[in-house]
Amino acid sequence: MTYEAPIEDMMFNIAHVAPGSADLEMAAAVLEEFGRFCAEEIAPLNATGDREGAQFDKGQVRTPAGFQAAYSKFVAMGWQGLSHPSEYGGQDLPRVVGAAAGEILNAANMSFALCPLLTDGAIEALLCFGSPEIKATYLPKLVSGAWTGTMNLTEPQAGSDLALLRTRAEGQADGSYMITGTKIFITYGDHDLAENIVHLVLARTPDAPRGIKGISLFLVPKFLVGGNAALGARNTVRCQSIEHKLGVRASPTCVLEFEGATGFLIGRENAGLEYMFTMMNAARFAVGVQGVAIGERAYQQALAYAKTRLQGRPVDGSAPGAVAIIQHPDVRRMLAHMRATTEGCRALAAFAAGWQDRAEAAASPDERADALAVAEFLVPLVKGFCTEMSVQTTSTGVQIYGGMGFIEETGAAQHTRDARILPIYEGTTAIQANDLLGRKTLRDGGATARRIAAMIAQTEQELQRGSQVAQEIALRLSDAREDFQSVVAHLVEVSPKDVNAAYAGAVPYLMLAGNLVAGWQLARSLLVAEAALARGEDPAFKSAKIATARFYAHHILIETALQHVRVAQGAASLLGTVL
Amino acid sequence: MTYEAPIEDMMFNIAHVAPGSADLEMAAAVLEEFGRFCAEEIAPLNATGDREGAQFDKGQVRTPAGFQAAYSKFVAMGWQGLSHPSEYGGQDLPRVVGAAAGEILNAANMSFALCPLLTDGAIEALLCFGSPEIKATYLPKLVSGAWTGTMNLTEPQAGSDLALLRTRAEGQADGSYMITGTKIFITYGDHDLAENIVHLVLARTPDAPRGIKGISLFLVPKFLVGGNAALGARNTVRCQSIEHKLGVRASPTCVLEFEGATGFLIGRENAGLEYMFTMMNAARFAVGVQGVAIGERAYQQALAYAKTRLQGRPVDGSAPGAVAIIQHPDVRRMLAHMRATTEGCRALAAFAAGWQDRAEAAASPDERADALAVAEFLVPLVKGFCTEMSVQTTSTGVQIYGGMGFIEETGAAQHTRDARILPIYEGTTAIQANDLLGRKTLRDGGATARRIAAMIAQTEQELQRGSQVAQEIALRLSDAREDFQSVVAHLVEVSPKDVNAAYAGAVPYLMLAGNLVAGWQLARSLLVAEAALARGEDPAFKSAKIATARFYAHHILIETALQHVRVAQGAASLLGTVL
Repeated sequence: MTYEAPIEDMMFNIAHVAPGSADLEMAAAVLEEFGRFCAEEIAPLNATGDREGAQFDKGQVRTPAGFQAAYSKFVAMGWQGLSHPSEYGGQDLPRVVGAAAGEILNAANMSFALCPLLTDGAIEALLCFGSPEIKATYLPKLVSGAWTGTMNLTEPQAGSDLALLRTRAEGQADGSYMITGTKIFITYGDHDLAENIVHLVLARTPDAPRGIKGISLFLVPKFLVGGNAALGARNTVRCQSIEHKLGVRASPTCVLEFEGATGFLIGRENAGLEYMFTMMNAARFAVGVQGVAIGERAYQQALAYAKTRLQGRPVDGSAPGAVAIIQHPDVRRMLAHMRATTEGCRALAAFAAGWQDRAEAAASPDERADALAVAEFLVPLVKGFCTEMSVQTTSTGVQIYGGMGFIEETGAAQHTRDARILPIYEGTTAIQANDLLGRKTLRDGGATARRIAAMIAQTEQELQRGSQVAQEIALRLSDAREDFQSVVAHLVEVSPKDVNAAYAGAVPYLMLAGNLVAGWQLARSLLVAEAALARGEDPAFKSAKIATARFYAHHILIETALQHVRVAQGAASLLGTVL
Repeated sequence: MTYEAPIEDMMFNIAHVAPGSADLEMAAAVLEEFGRFCAEEIAPLNATGDREGAQFDKGQVRTPAGFQAAYSKFVAMGWQGLSHPSEYGGQDLPRVVGAAAGEILNAANMSFALCPLLTDGAIEALLCFGSPEIKATYLPKLVSGAWTGTMNLTEPQAGSDLALLRTRAEGQADGSYMITGTKIFITYGDHDLAENIVHLVLARTPDAPRGIKGISLFLVPKFLVGGNAALGARNTVRCQSIEHKLGVRASPTCVLEFEGATGFLIGRENAGLEYMFTMMNAARFAVGVQGVAIGERAYQQALAYAKTRLQGRPVDGSAPGAVAIIQHPDVRRMLAHMRATTEGCRALAAFAAGWQDRAEAAASPDERADALAVAEFLVPLVKGFCTEMSVQTTSTGVQIYGGMGFIEETGAAQHTRDARILPIYEGTTAIQANDLLGRKTLRDGGATARRIAAMIAQTEQELQRGSQVAQEIALRLSDAREDFQSVVAHLVEVSPKDVNAAYAGAVPYLMLAGNLVAGWQLARSLLVAEAALARGEDPAFKSAKIATARFYAHHILIETALQHVRVAQGAASLLGTVL
């Protein structure tokens, strides 16, 4: 099944949803070239990689056929460095372009894309917290993609709850540390794509405080590194086994055993969790983008099938025999839902990336803090909402195929298997929702949430002055924004009195907020598209965008009403359930 | 992972949701024994069967290890005949008990259960339409389970659209037919569990009218059958290959090639579709019950995990360290959703089975027609709603496991893979929705739908006279029933003017109706439970039932409001989408 990067929609978002972040000509050129590369070199390995799977044999991890060659080309063309600083060999592109590129790579092949995604996370951590020597030694190799990165958080007894970490780090005379412990679920924890792997590992020093305040971050390379980045001895970190997973089967998920491995402290001791949170914002955003990606891939495939599969006479009697199933109203409904969800989530991610770019480009600390508050509010929405919706979207993709969707060879089932990890890793949806409610909403008394609501109200005013369709959407957006405001007010009020009741509504609140901000972006997009259409610009794309925004408002955005009831009136029945 | 049949809830439904159908003592005895048998003999083969899968080798289909022995015991104990006439060796139990037994077997092992499920379909067809000789020859062997049955509808070009069937049937001098064609997706089309397989095959005679009016139904045995049911020559129907599927991997899904195979006409020529619809009502109901079953299995497993997995401090600070995750509000929310959905769907299925039993026990043709109208209205609800919800429920089961849910060994992922076929086979959800809208609603101008609404309104009155919880639920039920009535009125009005607009709302209408009837049954159950509790009866079970009914009303039943908006106001934006 072929994949074509939706460059037109991505460029629309870069130009209009997050304006000002990127040089448009440069962005288009990069994305078009990357789209071609991924469609030609990476996408064809998606189904074959799934069938073959990552293999573990005699202590060695082997990626599926074609992955090594494709990764070499990926490195040779410099794609790993797209959003990273030119100081280390990167191309310095803004996050809004990086998000689009991330979507393309993940849509082409989520299993393959996980390796660069984890490398991005390691680069981010070292850029923020690495010492000058660490940066000089490791960043050029990571930014080029010659070496890859991993994040080592989870242990068998410590998943969402990092307080339970047991991996030990003992300081050595030379300033290094000796790392001992077992880490699980380490994506690309070992593989055959690159000559070295840079593990970032959470561990405890012997005298560390208990719980999350006693966690430190260490860099543990697979091969020790000498001067001029020359590879030295093999470090004592070994892959014990890889997991047999529901999806992303071509990506090795490793159990790593650290047996007195040599590690290097990143930043200060006992500040590991703080560093993780910084890294995690980036990683969580990237996982949200994976949700957009897999939704797009599933949509393209279902659309192609619906256009060619002949089955059933039309209910309106407009043809005497079987027609392409895309003509049946319910198939249209499913495709429209897939498309609107995916475009809404893509716009949400672009909007969030735009606020990150704005924070990074800020002229003053105040301006930066201001932009960062919005950017960080949006991260759990991107992660939580886009990934939950991708589970629905890919499942709908199977449904459009009917019985053929259940047969692995058609490929629709792979997307639903692959998508299923997205609301789980890098923090489950509940973890995202707790972050949204606790750190991003209650901590500032709802101020950031209200600021976003005020921006939405401005868009409503613009819509009210627009076309009839715009006015209809203004009503839906206004209802949804009021649902959001009521829920925020409710949670701020209830939380000090009954914290369980507040957190019982955390996930519905997240889904409400994600839906609202996605629908808002599509409403903004509709205004842009209507204006462009009035000028006669690009009628096919702009008409489709208007139709999608309208469908979203009438079929998806309306779900905020339900989430409002669940949060505001649902806690007692939830907490009272007998299980 | 163990499975325990929820006998208490099943017996509650048999006694109170569909009262009068069954002898309660007998039903309890049968279900308890069957529950033990399935838990001990069938459930342990669920995970191993999935891992091994059905195999196809040198033209032979082999079921996974243990299936043959378990099936032999199943036959020896007479379980196949549970709901079938004693005239042919069955036990004559009512459908409401058959539904409970079907749930138990499917929860234990959906792949295994598919074989008896298809045999039930064949028995049903022969009972209704077989000639006396056919009945005498085949029914005793099918009812005992010594032989199994299949349904052969689908061909590569003909899935939902049976008008496109090409398999040919040529009459022979001896009154038999020669059947030639390719059938796909034939569940247990070949296997090693029984000595003979009775295929029911849709095909066309040479002079048949085009389209669905030219389809006839034939019986094609794997081995021809002589006097005293002695097995004769191997018939020329062969399995060509089996499918590599997302789920139910232990059940062989066959491509069958009929090469001039000997077949026997069932009923009249060209009446095959009419017969299929009768059979399909039973088969569709059975698939709906599969949805309940897989939801229950996933719930039991997630609940057991949530009680033992220690992770995270409680948000209310009630413990200093990690607690079992069942204490976290969002895990409770997910478990409550799984439980309420499953109990609601179980009650919906029991209610529908009760109306089938009522129709069969009717004293007059009018009474029978009356009961049958309700029973048949409910079939697409059971099939469509229970299976769609099972996809959600099993996915939630994975989510509760977190990262462990994505690892195949834990078994949570298997349920979500297995469930995914349910909204597809025996007619996709859209096909069910078209049936509900076209045949079951528009054809009688909404009369049956209004009759059901009137019954619901009576329950509301009882609730209004009840406890505070009952009164709360009365409000939710009343809102949902009004949503239903508005939607029915809207569809009846719009359909003659704009049939596409009506059918654009078919699936939301189905989901609304299924949700409403399930929520209604739980509301009725709450009334019974409150009365029993007031008498001091069975406080643990009855309190849990009340809590579940309350959760359902406040978190799930409220979705009817959304579906109402989608049907009544969503058609224009849906049909206007650019795809």
